[in-house]
Amino acid sequence: MTSGDPEADLGLLSPMRGAAAETGDVAVLRALLDAEVALTRAQAALGAAPAEAAGAVAEAARVAAFDLPGLAARARSGGNPVIPLVADLRAAAGPHGAYVHRGATSQDIMDTALMLVAHRTLGPVLADLDRVARALAGLAAAHRDTVMAARTLTQQAVPTTFGLKAAGWRRLVLDARDRLRAARDALPVQLGGAAGTLAAFQDDLPGPGGNGGGGGALRLVARFAAELGLAEPALPWHVLRTPVADLAGALAFASGALGKPAADVLVLSRTEVGELSEGVGGGSSSMPHKRNPVRATMIAAAARQVPPLAAVLYASLAAEDERPPGAWHAEWQPLRECLRVVAGAARDAAELVEGLRVHPERMRANLTLSGSTGAARALVERAIEED
Amino acid sequence: MTSGDPEADLGLLSPMRGAAAETGDVAVLRALLDAEVALTRAQAALGAAPAEAAGAVAEAARVAAFDLPGLAARARSGGNPVIPLVADLRAAAGPHGAYVHRGATSQDIMDTALMLVAHRTLGPVLADLDRVARALAGLAAAHRDTVMAARTLTQQAVPTTFGLKAAGWRRLVLDARDRLRAARDALPVQLGGAAGTLAAFQDDLPGPGGNGGGGGALRLVARFAAELGLAEPALPWHVLRTPVADLAGALAFASGALGKPAADVLVLSRTEVGELSEGVGGGSSSMPHKRNPVRATMIAAAARQVPPLAAVLYASLAAEDERPPGAWHAEWQPLRECLRVVAGAARDAAELVEGLRVHPERMRANLTLSGSTGAARALVERAIEED
Amino acid sequence: MTSGDPEADLGLLSPMRGAAAETGDVAVLRALLDAEVALTRAQAALGAAPAEAAGAVAEAARVAAFDLPGLAARARSGGNPVIPLVADLRAAAGPHGAYVHRGATSQDIMDTALMLVAHRTLGPVLADLDRVARALAGLAAAHRDTVMAARTLTQQAVPTTFGLKAAGWRRLVLDARDRLRAARDALPVQLGGAAGTLAAFQDDLPGPGGNGGGGGALRLVARFAAELGLAEPALPWHVLRTPVADLAGALAFASGALGKPAADVLVLSRTEVGELSEGVGGGSSSMPHKRNPVRATMIAAAARQVPPLAAVLYASLAAEDERPPGAWHAEWQPLRECLRVVAGAARDAAELVEGLRVHPERMRANLTLSGSTGAARALVERAIEED
Amino acid sequence: MTSGDPEADLGLLSPMRGAAAETGDVAVLRALLDAEVALTRAQAALGAAPAEAAGAVAEAARVAAFDLPGLAARARSGGNPVIPLVADLRAAAGPHGAYVHRGATSQDIMDTALMLVAHRTLGPVLADLDRVARALAGLAAAHRDTVMAARTLTQQAVPTTFGLKAAGWRRLVLDARDRLRAARDALPVQLGGAAGTLAAFQDDLPGPGGNGGGGGALRLVARFAAELGLAEPALPWHVLRTPVADLAGALAFASGALGKPAADVLVLSRTEVGELSEGVGGGSSSMPHKRNPVRATMIAAAARQVPPLAAVLYASLAAEDERPPGAWHAEWQPLRECLRVVAGAARDAAELVEGLRVHPERMRANLTLSGSTGAARALVERAIEED
Repeated sequence: MTSGDPEADLGLLSPMRGAAAETGDVAVLRALLDAEVALTRAQAALGAAPAEAAGAVAEAARVAAFDLPGLAARARSGGNPVIPLVADLRAAAGPHGAYVHRGATSQDIMDTALMLVAHRTLGPVLADLDRVARALAGLAAAHRDTVMAARTLTQQAVPTTFGLKAAGWRRLVLDARDRLRAARDALPVQLGGAAGTLAAFQDDLPGPGGNGGGGGALRLVARFAAELGLAEPALPWHVLRTPVADLAGALAFASGALGKPAADVLVLSRTEVGELSEGVGGGSSSMPHKRNPVRATMIAAAARQVPPLAAVLYASLAAEDERPPGAWHAEWQPLRECLRVVAGAARDAAELVEGLRVHPERMRANLTLSGSTGAARALVERAIEED
Repeated sequence: MTSGDPEADLGLLSPMRGAAAETGDVAVLRALLDAEVALTRAQAALGAAPAEAAGAVAEAARVAAFDLPGLAARARSGGNPVIPLVADLRAAAGPHGAYVHRGATSQDIMDTALMLVAHRTLGPVLADLDRVARALAGLAAAHRDTVMAARTLTQQAVPTTFGLKAAGWRRLVLDARDRLRAARDALPVQLGGAAGTLAAFQDDLPGPGGNGGGGGALRLVARFAAELGLAEPALPWHVLRTPVADLAGALAFASGALGKPAADVLVLSRTEVGELSEGVGGGSSSMPHKRNPVRATMIAAAARQVPPLAAVLYASLAAEDERPPGAWHAEWQPLRECLRVVAGAARDAAELVEGLRVHPERMRANLTLSGSTGAARALVERAIEED
Repeated sequence: MTSGDPEADLGLLSPMRGAAAETGDVAVLRALLDAEVALTRAQAALGAAPAEAAGAVAEAARVAAFDLPGLAARARSGGNPVIPLVADLRAAAGPHGAYVHRGATSQDIMDTALMLVAHRTLGPVLADLDRVARALAGLAAAHRDTVMAARTLTQQAVPTTFGLKAAGWRRLVLDARDRLRAARDALPVQLGGAAGTLAAFQDDLPGPGGNGGGGGALRLVARFAAELGLAEPALPWHVLRTPVADLAGALAFASGALGKPAADVLVLSRTEVGELSEGVGGGSSSMPHKRNPVRATMIAAAARQVPPLAAVLYASLAAEDERPPGAWHAEWQPLRECLRVVAGAARDAAELVEGLRVHPERMRANLTLSGSTGAARALVERAIEED
Repeated sequence: MTSGDPEADLGLLSPMRGAAAETGDVAVLRALLDAEVALTRAQAALGAAPAEAAGAVAEAARVAAFDLPGLAARARSGGNPVIPLVADLRAAAGPHGAYVHRGATSQDIMDTALMLVAHRTLGPVLADLDRVARALAGLAAAHRDTVMAARTLTQQAVPTTFGLKAAGWRRLVLDARDRLRAARDALPVQLGGAAGTLAAFQDDLPGPGGNGGGGGALRLVARFAAELGLAEPALPWHVLRTPVADLAGALAFASGALGKPAADVLVLSRTEVGELSEGVGGGSSSMPHKRNPVRATMIAAAARQVPPLAAVLYASLAAEDERPPGAWHAEWQPLRECLRVVAGAARDAAELVEGLRVHPERMRANLTLSGSTGAARALVERAIEED
C-alpha cells in the first residue's frame, strides 16, 4: 500500500471533496510555516530582528523537514499543533531560534495559517465558479426558446424555458462567486500576541506613534499582512471572529447555490423525465446498464454537509475571554471541511454543466400544458448581461 | 384569561424574543395584505386594473376584518396561508375581487410579505445595535486605561484593558449592524406568477419591450417594488433564494456577535470574579439574595438558537423545480424565529451595555500578573474612530 | 379579528404543526400550574404542608385566572415565566400562599411542566403513528405482488414491489413509535430545589432515611412523580439533561422516519411518474388544475426543521454549573417546536397514508426493466408480522 | 517528511479526535474488504460459491495489496469507493473473481463496512467511558462531604458537595455508555442487492422457504451477519436508516454528556475560582507560566462539533427511492467524524477525570454562603450504587 500513515484520511469517504492539495495537512503545515516566516521577516524589516535571522528561519521552514504525523500527535498535549511546531522550528533555526514566533501566540499563527489556506483554496474555487457561470450563460442563450414544463410541488404547472432555468442557476452561481470573492479579499492576518494587546511586539518596537505608543506594533501588523498578501485587520480578531463567520456564510451559500442546479438535474434526469442527462454518467457495481447522475449526486451530498458545519462556525462567535476553551478549537476542522467540500462541489458543478446534455424533444414531449412562456425570453436576455 | 386563542404562542417560552409586534401573526397578516394591495395598485398604475379596483382592494384589506385563527387553520389544506387569504380578500373586495392576486401565485405574496416583515423588524434592530455601539464607545473611551487580566483558556494570561475589550465588542456589533443593514437594504419583492415567467402579467401588460416582449411585466415588478419600498430583483427568486440565505447569514452573525459581550459578562460577573455586573440583575424564585446576569443569559440563549435555524435556511437554497415541496415551506417559521430572537438579543444587549457596571478596583485586585498593556491604548483609539 | 393578542403566533407560518392544543402557551401554563399543585399536594401528603393548603393552591391554580400575555411579558425580567407565575399564584392562594412553590426553584417547575407537555403531546402522536403503521400494513399486504421499478440514484434499477416499499415505511414508523414511546415512558419530574440538593425540602421533611438523612426529600420526589404520572428520576437532572436529549433524539428520528414515505410520495406522484397520488390533493392559488401532494410536502418541511433543533437540545447537555446561563433557556422553545412539528407530521402522515392512491397500472407501464423481485414477498411477509 | 501523501489529513487540525487507528482510511478499507470476504464466505457456506473461491477472495483481500490513494481518487467517478475496490479485488482474486461482490451492490458493502468501523471504534470508547465512570465513582465517594458552592446563572446559590457534582457527572457518563452500548449491539449488516430485494442472491439460493421463496437469500443475510459479528436486520435498511440515526443520537448524546464535566472543570479551574485543576495542564507557546485545562478544552470543542453532524445524519432518514442521490453519500464522513471526535472525548475525559486535582480548601474559602447540603449525601449514596 502506498500510504505511509495507517491513520490518515485520504478522502476515501469523501468523493465530494476537492482542493485536496490546498487543504490537506501538508498545505496546513506549509501555511503555518509561511506565517512564522512572514512574522520574522516583518520583524526584520522593521528592525526588531536581524536580517540573517529572517533568512535562517525561512531556510529552516521547509515543509519536508518536519515530521507531520509527529506534529499531529504532539498537538494533543497543548491542544494545538503550533506549540510543537514552534519547538521544532526553533531547533531547526539554530542560533536564530530566538527569532522564531517572537512575541506571538499560537493563535496568531493558527488563525493566519487558516486564512492562508482559505485564500489559496478559494482561488481555484472562484475559477471553477466562473467556468460554471460561463457554461450556464451558453446554455441560457442556446435554450432561450426551448420550452419545457415548469414544475411546482412536483406537478407540471405552466410552460417555462430551459433558458430561464439555466439563467437562474447562473444568477445563483454568480451570487456565490461574489460572496466568496468578497470573503476571500477580506481574509486578514491575525497578530495580537499573548492576548491581543500586541504587548511583546510593542516592547521590541516602541516606535513613534502617539497615544501612549502602539505605532511600532501596528506597523508590524501591516507589514505582516503585506508579507502574506492578506488584509490588515482593524483590531486583533482572536475573539472577534468576523473573518471566520463571514467565510462560513459564504461557503454555506455556495454549497446551496450549487445544490440548486444539482437538485434540478437530479429531477430532470430521472428515467421517467429524461430531459437532462450528465455527459459522463457514473457506473454501478451491480447494474452495468445504469448511467447515474453522479456529479449532481456529489453536489447534493455537499449541500447537505456544509450548512451545519457553518452553524458550528457561527456559534463560535459567542466566545468568552481573550481565547475561549473550545469555541476556537472547534473551528479548525469544520472550516477546512467546508472549504474542501465546497471546492469539490465547484469542480463537480463545472464538469456537470460543461457536459450537460439537454433533450429538448423530451421536454416538448413531456409537456402536458399549453400557455405562453410570458417574459421568460426577456428575463433571460436581462440575466445573461449581468455579472 | 385575556388571550383569545388557547393554541396561541405568546412567547411564554421565549423571553429572549423581541419585536413581537413586528413579527407576530398579525404583522404577517398585515404584510400579506400589504403585498396584495401593492400588486393591485401597481397593476392599476400600469393600466392593467381599474383605479377603483385598487381602492376597493385596499379598503377590503384591513387586518381587523380577517379571521386570523381561521386562516391559520385553513392554511393546512393547501399548505400555505395565502390560498385562504386570497379567497377571503376576493370576497371582501366584492365586484373588484377579480383584481385581487391577479396573475400572482401564493409564493409571490408569501415571499414578499416575509421580506416586508424582515424589513420592518430590522429597523428597530438596527437602532438597538446603534445604541449598543454608542454605549460601548463610551465604555471603551472611559476605560482605555482600566487595567484587567486578559484570560486565555480560562487562565489569567497577561494584562489588558477593559477599554480594549469594550472596543472589540463594539467592532463586532458594528460588523453585525453592517451585515444586517446590507441585508435589509437588499430585501426584494418577489413576483413571478405561477412559475416565475410572469406569464399572466405579461398577458395583461404586453407592453413595448423588445426581445419578444416582457417589458410590461418587468415594469410591473419595478412598480410593485416601489409600492412597497423593497428592492427590485434581477430575476424572480422563487427558487433562487439569495435574499433568504443572505438574511439568514446576517442574523446568525448578529446572534453570535451579540453573544460575545454576553459571554464575557457571564464570566466577569461570576461571584468569584466580580469585575462586571448587570445594572438590573434578575431575581430568583428560590434565592432572593441573588443578582443574576439575566440580560446576558438571554443573549447567550439566543446565540445558541439562531445558527442552527440559519442552517435550515441555507439548506433551502438547494431546492428542486420551480417550487420545491418542502424546502420553501421549511423557511417560514425559522426565518421569523431568527428575526425575533435576534431582535430580542439586540434589545437585551442595549439594556445590558447601557446599564453595565464596571468594577475597576476588582479588576485590579484580581490581577495576578504584571506586564505592560502593549498597544491596547492605540488600538482603542483607532477602534473608537471607526464606524 | 378574533385573536386577542396582536403579538401572538397562531401557526400562520407553520401549517405543518400539530398538537396546537397540547403545546400552546395555555397548555404550558396549565402544566406549570399542575406542577405547582402537585408539589404542594405531595408536601401535604407527607406532612410538610396542611391539607387545606393543597386544596387552596389547587383551587387557585385555574388557568383561566391568570393573565397569560402579562406572564409572558413579565418573564423577561428574571428570564423565565415561573417567577411571575409563582407571585401570582401565591397571591391567589391567599393565606396559603406560603405553601406555593415551597422549597422549589423555577427550574423544578419549568422542567417538570415541559415533561408534562411532552407527555401529553406524545399520546396523540403515538396514536397517529399507530394509525400510520396500520394503514401501511394494509398497503404492504395488498401490494405484496404489485411490481414497480426500484430506483437508485434517480434511475430505474431493478424491479421491486410496492408492498416491499410500504413494509419498509412501516418498519421505520414502528421504529419511530418505539423510540418515542420509550422516551415518553421515561419522562421524569424534576425536583431539586435551589441547586439540586433538595435542601429546603429536607429541612421540612427530615424523615427517617439513614445516610445523614435525605429520606424525607427523596420520598417527596417519589410522591411528586406519582401525583403527575411521570417517572421518578435517579438524581435531580437540572444539569443532567438526559431526558431532554433523549426526547430530542426520538423526535428527530420521528421527523426523519416520517420523511421517508413523504419523500417517496413526492417522487412517485410527479406528473411524469404518477404511480401514487394523495387522496386529497391540495389546490393552488394560481393553477386550479393542480393536485399538489400537500401532506407529503408538509411532512418533508417538518423533516428539515427538526434535526437542527434537536442539535440545539443535544448541545445543551454540555452545561456548566448547577444551572447554566443560556443552555437551559435555549431548550424551551426548540423542544416545544420539535414536539409540535413532529405532531403535525404524524397527523399528516396518517392522512397521507390512509388516503394514498396507488396506481399499479402506471407502475407496470413505467417499468422499463425485466427481472425477478427476488425475496420481496418473503420480506414483506416477515415485516408485516413484526411490531 | 514521513507522510507519503501530500493530500492526507492526519489530524493536524483535530487534536480532539481519537481512535485514529480504528477510523482512518486504512481501517475503512479493511472493513470494506472484510465485508466482501464475509459475503463470499457466507455464499460458500450456503453452497452458492465454491469453498476455494472464499479462500481465494480472503487471500486477495489483504489491505496492504491495495492502492489506497488510488482508490480514493477513483471513487470520484462513480461516487463511491466500492466500485473501484471491487474491480481491484476481482482482479486480485484471479479466476475466482466472479465470486467477489456477487449479487451485491456498493451500498451493501459500504454500509456494512461503516457498521464494522463503528463497532470496532466503540469497543475502546466504551472502555474509556467505564474508566471515566470508575474514576468518578471514586471522586464522588471521596468527596461526599466536601462542601462547595453550587452556582446558578453564574452566581453562588447555596452549598452543595463536590461528591454530588461528581455523582451527577457519573450518571451522565453511564447514560452515554448505555446508549452507545445499545447502539453498538444493534449494529447490523446490510445486504439487499441492487435495490433491496435480494434478487440476485435469491437466484443463486432458491432455497426452501415458503412464501414464494426468499428463504435462501434470508439465510444468506443471517450467515453474512454471523461472519462479521454484526446483527441481522429485519429488512434491508439501505433506505431505512435506523442504524445510522440511532448511532448518531448516541454519539451526540455522548459528546454532550462528556461535555458536562468538561464545562464544569473549565469554570472551576479558572484562576479566580481554583477549585479544580487538571493533573497535567497544557502549556502555551507564549506564556510558559500557564497551566491550561487542555483536556477539558478538547472535550468542550468536541461537544460543539458532534450535534450538528448528527443532525446531518438524522436528516438523511428522509431519503427518496431505493438509494437517494446525496442523502446517503452525505452520511459517510460525518458518521466517521462523529465516531472519532467522540472517541477522542472519551479518552480525554478518562485522562481528565483520573488526573483531576480537587482543592477542598479553596472550595471552602470561596463559599460565601451558609446553609445545609440537604440530601446531597443521600443522593450520592444512591447514585454510586447505580450502574
